[in-house]
Amino acid sequence: MAKILFLLEDEFEDLEFFYPFYRLIEEGHSAEVASSSTSEKKGKHGYYVKPDRNYTGVDAAKYDTLVIPGGRSPERVRVNSQAVNIVKSFLESGKVVAAICHGPQLLISAGIVKGRRMTSWIGIRDDIIAAGGIYEDAEVVVDDNIITSRMPDDLPAFCREILKKLRQK
Amino acid sequence: MAKILFLLEDEFEDLEFFYPFYRLIEEGHSAEVASSSTSEKKGKHGYYVKPDRNYTGVDAAKYDTLVIPGGRSPERVRVNSQAVNIVKSFLESGKVVAAICHGPQLLISAGIVKGRRMTSWIGIRDDIIAAGGIYEDAEVVVDDNIITSRMPDDLPAFCREILKKLRQK
Repeated sequence: MAKILFLLEDEFEDLEFFYPFYRLIEEGHSAEVASSSTSEKKGKHGYYVKPDRNYTGVDAAKYDTLVIPGGRSPERVRVNSQAVNIVKSFLESGKVVAAICHGPQLLISAGIVKGRRMTSWIGIRDDIIAAGGIYEDAEVVVDDNIITSRMPDDLPAFCREILKKLRQK
Repeated sequence: MAKILFLLEDEFEDLEFFYPFYRLIEEGHSAEVASSSTSEKKGKHGYYVKPDRNYTGVDAAKYDTLVIPGGRSPERVRVNSQAVNIVKSFLESGKVVAAICHGPQLLISAGIVKGRRMTSWIGIRDDIIAAGGIYEDAEVVVDDNIITSRMPDDLPAFCREILKKLRQK
């Protein structure tokens, strides 16, 4: 089965972490969480997650797919250059990178948005357009190895596409 | 596809509602929420859910499966005799009733626990035993048409069994 990495900091959108996390486990995959430290991170709604490792301890080659939940977490993740390098590493090796809500902020920081079809939380739509992305208002947008969604209610479609990619591997 | 009903009141355990709710939608089923009123209900962690109908408006014959999320919601649901009658109606017609965490409190109120294998949040374990149930400490227990789990981390196993039952129909 596949091995999936999540990038997470404080004020992550709780459902956008837990739905994909439990969903991948339900499917028999394994999932790990990387953060700036291994101390517990707290979601916007008060759920706690204990990261498995910090960014320096991540060997991207060991994972099949990267998932970036939203909330205020992605702004905290993107200021860490090691975290951005992890995103770049997944993208450069053609692995699936799935980002929801504010998660696509990491795609902007990784410098790969230009000419790509994607969606996001509407509040960062203009950042995606300014970075050269082709914005679509849809529950999920799949452009090659990049999967993006807008918000928690898109989670069924978001995970359906992530799992479809994992089955194609 | 199947039609699933959720019973929900204030202080429901947010993930125990949203994970099964989104999961059933991901699978192509439809899901509705019944409550004492159609005004928004608030989860323990602050997520809001707008019920589709109140208990009096539920025609149990129209649904295939009943799901009862936990938190402090089940104690509020069980004091409403119409809600308890809905649970009885599903059980008597042999439909699947899935309850997680404090959800099995509704099974006690429906008077069908005696001799049944089940699990729950540990805090109500002794109530299940006192009611004649056969308690098991497992992520999910399936006894004929009754599916029970203990807590949010059991959600992948809980939903795996609910979906297995739906596929067998």
